[in-house]
This record gives sequence, structure tokens and C-alpha cells, in this order.
Amino acid sequence: MKFGKLDRAPSYRMLAETVEREILEGRLRPGDKLPTETAFAEQFAVNRSTVREGIRLLEESGLVRREGGRRLFVARPETADLASRMSRAMVMHEVTFRELWETMMALEPMAAELAAANAQPEHLEALAANLAETKALLADTVAVARLDIAFHALIAEAAGNRALLLAREALGQLFYPAFETVISGIPSAPERLLVAHGQVFRHIQAGNAAEARLWMERHIKDFKRGFDRLGLDLAAPIALPKQKRA
Amino acid sequence: MKFGKLDRAPSYRMLAETVEREILEGRLRPGDKLPTETAFAEQFAVNRSTVREGIRLLEESGLVRREGGRRLFVARPETADLASRMSRAMVMHEVTFRELWETMMALEPMAAELAAANAQPEHLEALAANLAETKALLADTVAVARLDIAFHALIAEAAGNRALLLAREALGQLFYPAFETVISGIPSAPERLLVAHGQVFRHIQAGNAAEARLWMERHIKDFKRGFDRLGLDLAAPIALPKQKRA
Repeated sequence: MKFGKLDRAPSYRMLAETVEREILEGRLRPGDKLPTETAFAEQFAVNRSTVREGIRLLEESGLVRREGGRRLFVARPETADLASRMSRAMVMHEVTFRELWETMMALEPMAAELAAANAQPEHLEALAANLAETKALLADTVAVARLDIAFHALIAEAAGNRALLLAREALGQLFYPAFETVISGIPSAPERLLVAHGQVFRHIQAGNAAEARLWMERHIKDFKRGFDRLGLDLAAPIALPKQKRA
Repeated sequence: MKFGKLDRAPSYRMLAETVEREILEGRLRPGDKLPTETAFAEQFAVNRSTVREGIRLLEESGLVRREGGRRLFVARPETADLASRMSRAMVMHEVTFRELWETMMALEPMAAELAAANAQPEHLEALAANLAETKALLADTVAVARLDIAFHALIAEAAGNRALLLAREALGQLFYPAFETVISGIPSAPERLLVAHGQVFRHIQAGNAAEARLWMERHIKDFKRGFDRLGLDLAAPIALPKQKRA
């Protein structure tokens, strides 16, 4: 790789942007090794601390990772990292449950429809295992809420669409506390959830896109009914789920 | 604000995470001033270069901004910044046009449906102005593509749902080159687009959610037909639109 000498401040940002452009335009590919710090410093005619700052920006953006703490290589940004950024932004913008729910109503039925066309045997197996576990743990509302989130994430994976997966990943995380509240607050909720999940699964397995979509729509609407029945406020801003921290 | 002394490396990251937690849990609110570098260095018992690195991370995440280059204050992450991160991630993961189009098929009809319920007079005005300009510039395919992106972004704004807005913003950016190709490659495309946009607008204005949704669905399907007719490959990975750079 050859880079021109930098001519504008702040240099660390220009260095990061130059490398980013090489990556995004495909001249550097995921897995490619980056030059060493010394080589960067020479090529860009900047000192090593500038190189380190620029590289830190690239690491933050997920476009560059360190292999065993040493050589830098080009990486793909992790969708999980992007999803937490989106979650944080939604919390800071005081996005409401209504907004979250409406977006789920757009994405989840499409995910079920696509899963009916694209699900692979391993997805069907994982979904069947999730259903069996939900059935076995139906009295444990915390477990059911966790399995519910996992079920929907599995459907999104089975849909074979990474744009959809990325768009909904942040929403799933944010919905967790509300799921748990509805599931533990309404006695019939776990049973209704199990029935709906069972139908969605059956239609995905059979390749019935329209039916899979319909049952998912019913299921998402049912969640809102539970939310309303508990007197919860759809206009309330969402909060971040409590995080386990080291 | 009081912070405890840091006890684990790397310190700059722990500093950033500590401040981030204060922000996300609402103890520091948007607009609040942060302590000075010196105060941070004392409170965390670290040196100022560590403080600067930690703050740089917070600035990168959009949670902190500098007021006139000096005092730091708490900010909300910009959705435009998140959208570019998502776009870059999708390019790096070689997301295809099919995936993008399917996700648009999920989000755009919902946006039109919600806009019929929530559009404010200023949204309707902006949409009417967009339509008038599209009509006036119908022979200029570059202008029509630009106005098309703007029309869909306006609908998403009129929907009054920031979760949906955020989810689709990255997609709109990535679709631009394909819009332009279809609009300039198929002689009837600008006229068909104008008719569809007109119908979507009319039904939003009249508050007909179901009709607004239906016309939006037709419009998005029509785009795919154009794409197919030109022999373009839905399985091809998307690319970043050419960026204007300083």
C-alpha cells in the first residue's frame, strides 16, 4: 500500500479516514494486514503517537482489529457493536415503546415471511429446541422472556437478510424489560406466547410465508394488548436493560 | 459529579465507560457540562493524556461534544452518524440489493401508514414541494433520483417514529445509486414514480393509512421490476455511493 503525505489537521483523523477509504472502496479487504506503526508513521510523515490515535479511531469503528494484541488487520464491524450503539442512541433520544413496537410490527412479520422461504435445517433445529425449552420452562417467566427474545432473533437469522437483522437487533435488546413485564404480569401470556411461537414455527417449517407472517403479526399485536392491559404507558421512553458489568 | 478512582487498565477506556454509564442512566443529561480535563484527572487519579483519550472515545460515540472547541457537554448521538456506521457495516458485510430491498419492503409501507396518522402541516408542505419539483424536473433523471430519496426520507419523518427513521436511514443512503440507475435506464420510470408518489401523498394527506401503505408497497415493488428489467443482479453486493470529500 502507498499513501500520500498528510497536509491537514488533525492528522490522526485524516490518517483514519484515509485508511477507512482504502477499506470501504475495497483496496484493503477483511483479513488484510495493515502496515506496522513505524511504516504508517513513515508513509504519512507523522509521528507514532499520531498513528496510534488514528488506529484507535479505526479500532473503535470496528474496521480494524488487533491480532493477538500485535499486528493490525482489516475487520468487518461487529453487528452486535452497532446494535448497542443504536440502542444507546434510542435511549438518549427518548424513543418510546410505541415507536419501538411500531418498528417491530414492520420488521418481525417480514422476518417470519422470509424465514419461511430461507430457513435452513440448522435454523429449524434451533427453533424447535427453543420451543421445547419454552414449553418445559413455561412457569418460569424470566426464562420465557429470555427464550422469547431468542426465538425472535432466531427467526431473523433464518430470514437470511443481514440488513433486516441489523435493523432489528437493537430493538430486540431494548424490548427485553417490556417482554418480561408482560410475561410475568399476565397469567395467560406464557401460554399464548407458546401457541403463537408454535404456529409461526410450523408455518416456517412448511414454507407457508403468508401464514408465518400472519401469526407473527398476531403475536406482536398480542404483546401490545398485554402492555395496554397492564396499564403500561406506550408513550413512556424506553430505558437500557440493566447491564452486567465486570 | 463524583467518580471513584480507577483501578483497572486501560484507564482511558474505563474513564469513557464510567462517564457513559452516568449519561445512559440519566445522571448526566444532554446539555450538562462535563468537568474540565484537570478536574477529571484529579477525580479519576489519572494523567491528563489519559483523560484526553477517554474523552476522544466519548466524542467518537457521539455522547459528548465540545462547545465552541472548549467546554465539553453531554450530547445525543447524531442519527446521521449512526446511519453512516450502519451503511459502512453493510458494505463490509457485502449485503446484497435483495436484502436491502426486502428491508425497504418492510419499513417503507409502515412509514407511509404511520405518516397518514401522524403527518403535521409542515410535513405535508414539504412533501407537496417535493412533488412539484419532481414534476418540474421529470426529464432530469439525476434530480429525480435525488428527489426520490428526499421524498422517502420526508415520509419517514412524517411517520413520527425515530426508531423507524434510524432503521431506514442507512438503507436510503445505500439505495441511491440503484435508484439513479433504474430512473435513468427505464424511460417510463420517472413518470411512474411521479404517479406513485402523488398517490402516496394524497392518501397521507387524507389520512387513509391503508391506501397510503398499499401505494407505497406498489411503488417499492415497481422499483424491483425496473431493477429486474434492466438485468441488474439482486444478489450483487451493494457499494458505498461516491462521496464528496473536502
